[in-house]
Amino acid sequence: MEFLEKILRKITPSREEYLTMGKVASKVLTAAYSVLNELQIDAKPEIHGSYSKDTWLSGEGDIDLFILFPSNIPLSKMREQGLYVAERVAEKLKCCAKHRYASHPYLELHINDVKVDIVPGYYVRTYEEVKTPVDRTRLHTIYVLHNLKKEQRGHVRLLKKFFKALGLYGAEIKVQGFSGYLIELLIIKYGTFINALKSIAEWKPYKVSISLEEAVQPGKFNEPLVFIDPVDPRRNVAAAVSEENLWKAIAAAQAFIENPSECFFNVEHADREEVFELLKNRETFLLALVYHFNRYLPEDVVWGQLKRAERKLKNFLERKGFKIFSTASWYENARAAVFLEASTPTLPPVFERKGPPINAQGVKLFLAKYSKTGAVAGPYIKEGKWHVLLKRKKRDLTEILEENIDKIGVPQELLKAYKGIRLGENLAELFESQEYVDFLYYWLRRKEPWLECVEN
Amino acid sequence: MEFLEKILRKITPSREEYLTMGKVASKVLTAAYSVLNELQIDAKPEIHGSYSKDTWLSGEGDIDLFILFPSNIPLSKMREQGLYVAERVAEKLKCCAKHRYASHPYLELHINDVKVDIVPGYYVRTYEEVKTPVDRTRLHTIYVLHNLKKEQRGHVRLLKKFFKALGLYGAEIKVQGFSGYLIELLIIKYGTFINALKSIAEWKPYKVSISLEEAVQPGKFNEPLVFIDPVDPRRNVAAAVSEENLWKAIAAAQAFIENPSECFFNVEHADREEVFELLKNRETFLLALVYHFNRYLPEDVVWGQLKRAERKLKNFLERKGFKIFSTASWYENARAAVFLEASTPTLPPVFERKGPPINAQGVKLFLAKYSKTGAVAGPYIKEGKWHVLLKRKKRDLTEILEENIDKIGVPQELLKAYKGIRLGENLAELFESQEYVDFLYYWLRRKEPWLECVEN
Repeated sequence: MEFLEKILRKITPSREEYLTMGKVASKVLTAAYSVLNELQIDAKPEIHGSYSKDTWLSGEGDIDLFILFPSNIPLSKMREQGLYVAERVAEKLKCCAKHRYASHPYLELHINDVKVDIVPGYYVRTYEEVKTPVDRTRLHTIYVLHNLKKEQRGHVRLLKKFFKALGLYGAEIKVQGFSGYLIELLIIKYGTFINALKSIAEWKPYKVSISLEEAVQPGKFNEPLVFIDPVDPRRNVAAAVSEENLWKAIAAAQAFIENPSECFFNVEHADREEVFELLKNRETFLLALVYHFNRYLPEDVVWGQLKRAERKLKNFLERKGFKIFSTASWYENARAAVFLEASTPTLPPVFERKGPPINAQGVKLFLAKYSKTGAVAGPYIKEGKWHVLLKRKKRDLTEILEENIDKIGVPQELLKAYKGIRLGENLAELFESQEYVDFLYYWLRRKEPWLECVEN
Repeated sequence: MEFLEKILRKITPSREEYLTMGKVASKVLTAAYSVLNELQIDAKPEIHGSYSKDTWLSGEGDIDLFILFPSNIPLSKMREQGLYVAERVAEKLKCCAKHRYASHPYLELHINDVKVDIVPGYYVRTYEEVKTPVDRTRLHTIYVLHNLKKEQRGHVRLLKKFFKALGLYGAEIKVQGFSGYLIELLIIKYGTFINALKSIAEWKPYKVSISLEEAVQPGKFNEPLVFIDPVDPRRNVAAAVSEENLWKAIAAAQAFIENPSECFFNVEHADREEVFELLKNRETFLLALVYHFNRYLPEDVVWGQLKRAERKLKNFLERKGFKIFSTASWYENARAAVFLEASTPTLPPVFERKGPPINAQGVKLFLAKYSKTGAVAGPYIKEGKWHVLLKRKKRDLTEILEENIDKIGVPQELLKAYKGIRLGENLAELFESQEYVDFLYYWLRRKEPWLECVEN
């Protein structure tokens, strides 16, 4: 498969890129050493992540600088001192830094167009010492550097790019896919890009439990895909992969094995006009609930809430009688939206309500409620249960949503940020970025992208 | 419960009625004897049915004259001679007779406003000799005359009237309810009207198997209600009672026991204007498929076909995506109609089609079919299966029905008689009779009639 060579050339960073990254890395490392020295703080700066493992994709390199404290320092002190050190480093680099939050606060800055995250953590040697999730990163770097052969780095890059084109690269809630570390482990396990795909093609959700160590007993995890972390057997590296996304990976892997082509790595971008067209010709009912936040919220927190809101809204509307084809969410610059696609904007005027079985407790209440009031028909007996036909008071999806918005179970944080509903073509203009346009395009088309590659 | 006395007075035939019925009975019997004598045919005329058992309701008496042949005559000869005798009897009585057909042909005539059925059959003494279903009638008469006490006839009349008011009196396919003989047996079993209702109130479909004889082993029948015929243990007298109707009987019996009143025996009649009003204010989609037959068809045959057509139409339309609240049928004077009530006249423009699981055989076919053509969205993976959103070509219920009318499984006989579709208020005028107006009224209201009696 010569085309893989071609793709590899595209996604391997250029000499120039390596130079830039190297410069930035040494700059931040130097600054960190000097700040720690000045402040007389006993911590060790280290660079981890895909840059340190040389598995990053061309054009997407970033630097993860860890400020690692000895494990005898209390968590609160580590966080406080860590953030202080990070701020001093940013100052020294004359960079404007943004505060971010994952499992605990960290700093994000940009140097020569390279994103640099400065993350405090503990310096650990084994998983028993791990206190915060970021501490494990150091162990991951060491494991990969020891176990991933140099010639396998290209295979990691290919597999990352493959998943990226499918929209399955990343363990964050927004994506619920395959993390960089998981992809590295898959190459360590299966040797090559092709062998990894051959194995993935055979997977079945909830039937796969992969381990690199003999000793680990299976069956401890109940996620759709299990890959036990070789540096910490208590952790499933693939915990983030949703069942839906696992199916998508399996199907794509099968298709690639059967029909390998460059096309699988292509990512089609859309423009806003195209999305307008899709929205205009759509004969479904498309709706977005819009949220504006007053303050910065950690992305994973917002995404978690958006996903919960999707589920709650879908269940609520389906209980009311709507058919919801799909839901989706977007978050960008302290604004968010939950999208719904329904088959119709209104419900039929009359519906059938199922009541209790004829021998059940609630019968008298049900009959008292409906036999005098203006039921369209009934109460009547059907399949051993009481039923009535009733006229709907509210039939309009938008109206029903707006009236019940605070009773559906949408997280409070979102409710406070709620800014109303937008419909149809207006959805194209809710956010600024190209990523949003692409997201909307892919959500509306909803076609697995690799299908374009197997058609003839 | 004094009101029961009052009702009993209303439903017991008057002296005058007894006189009329007696006159007609002896007329037809005399005529039959004389015809058989003239033709030198070895058969015995006997009167059976509710008149001979004195359990008929005032105003509803009819005469069942059986021409009973010895069992050594072949069936074809018995039928031929039987019908010939019946025709001669009608001639002698100067009556114009209609040919009818149940399990075999018989004659219906009217004398002094009394309906007389002349039915050929075999003269049998035990069920082992029974050759045609009508032969058993003689055994039923004998059994009831021997086992139903004279003072219990009133209880039979009350129970008949009770079921009649519920629309559950009659074993024909049109009604799928309780036959007169079954009601007589219930009174023989439980003694009184009230005791019968108390027992019915405790019934559960598929859990009741009643026998008047010790020797009969249960579990041979799988109908919702089982009452083993005391004159023929191979037969379930309650075979015709549908589960739906059994539930209705149970619920009504429970209500009566708890809240006994005259009201349960009332039958409310409607007028065409009322039905017009109901149709006009209905916000559902009401439709009738109309059938005109060229020739007379036995009622039970047509009703069987209509019921089958109801099921087939409902299933077909629900597979297409419609919500069918209810179906019903009517037959009168060689015309018939099947009624449907749907929640909407049209389907949404777009629907979701579920395809094969991703590892299944049909995947390639499904993808080839939908990935190039203009699917609204997809093919996409959802819950491990391929799906697409598709535009509907036809959305209109009437149109979809008309296009598929011959592919749905509606019986051929009906298809040949099909005369098109009528909608909404037009349904009020499809048939002439008061019975039709009442039927439509009850079907549209669909309220169990006795509910009026327990409201407060």
